[in-house]
Amino acid sequence: MAEQVVTLSDLAGAVRYNADGLVPAIVQDIHTREVLMMAWMNAESLRQTMELGETVFWSRSRGAYWHKGSTSGNVQRVSELRVDCDGDTLLVLVEAAGPACHTGERSCFFRVALRTPETGA
Amino acid sequence: MAEQVVTLSDLAGAVRYNADGLVPAIVQDIHTREVLMMAWMNAESLRQTMELGETVFWSRSRGAYWHKGSTSGNVQRVSELRVDCDGDTLLVLVEAAGPACHTGERSCFFRVALRTPETGA
Repeated sequence: MAEQVVTLSDLAGAVRYNADGLVPAIVQDIHTREVLMMAWMNAESLRQTMELGETVFWSRSRGAYWHKGSTSGNVQRVSELRVDCDGDTLLVLVEAAGPACHTGERSCFFRVALRTPETGA
Repeated sequence: MAEQVVTLSDLAGAVRYNADGLVPAIVQDIHTREVLMMAWMNAESLRQTMELGETVFWSRSRGAYWHKGSTSGNVQRVSELRVDCDGDTLLVLVEAAGPACHTGERSCFFRVALRTPETGA
């Protein structure tokens, strides 16, 4: 894949926020490549994420900034920030200090359905 | 990780759609674990995805169902469907017949900014 390495500033400028000023941020473990969680960022939480080097989201339910791991210690150190072709989704590759999920699971996506020709709907 | 294997029907029942009846679906290559794209599904496109075994999204811009690869041939065969802890995001692991991105890149997330202590904000 022809990757384009851009500056943090250029990446931030490429983001297209939705009508609520938010963008979905997919969080992936940089070592295992496991997708850990999806949460939302606004421009200020993206700025804090870049400055701090740890994920900071906007909690829609609490209406507050959410520095992941600030209480649990399970911070996510940012290694790479990616933006998709049309700028409306972020992909954040992290080193995770602990589980991403509030249930204690490493990933929030622990429920899985397998689709095989035999079992397909 | 303690995975929970569920049926397709149970997984579909666990999805919580947003006010527009949509849920974000992250698409990941099952072999390389690369995150390829993010798009949206409604209940009917999820049903079609399960039935067909290939990704079907709801295109918000076109207001139409979008069977990925139906014109380009770059279909995404579904291997696993995952739902997150609170049911508001899907993760679809696929075998990709070709590039996910309309630019011809394998992944839509080809723009990357690296955060290191040296270059950080």
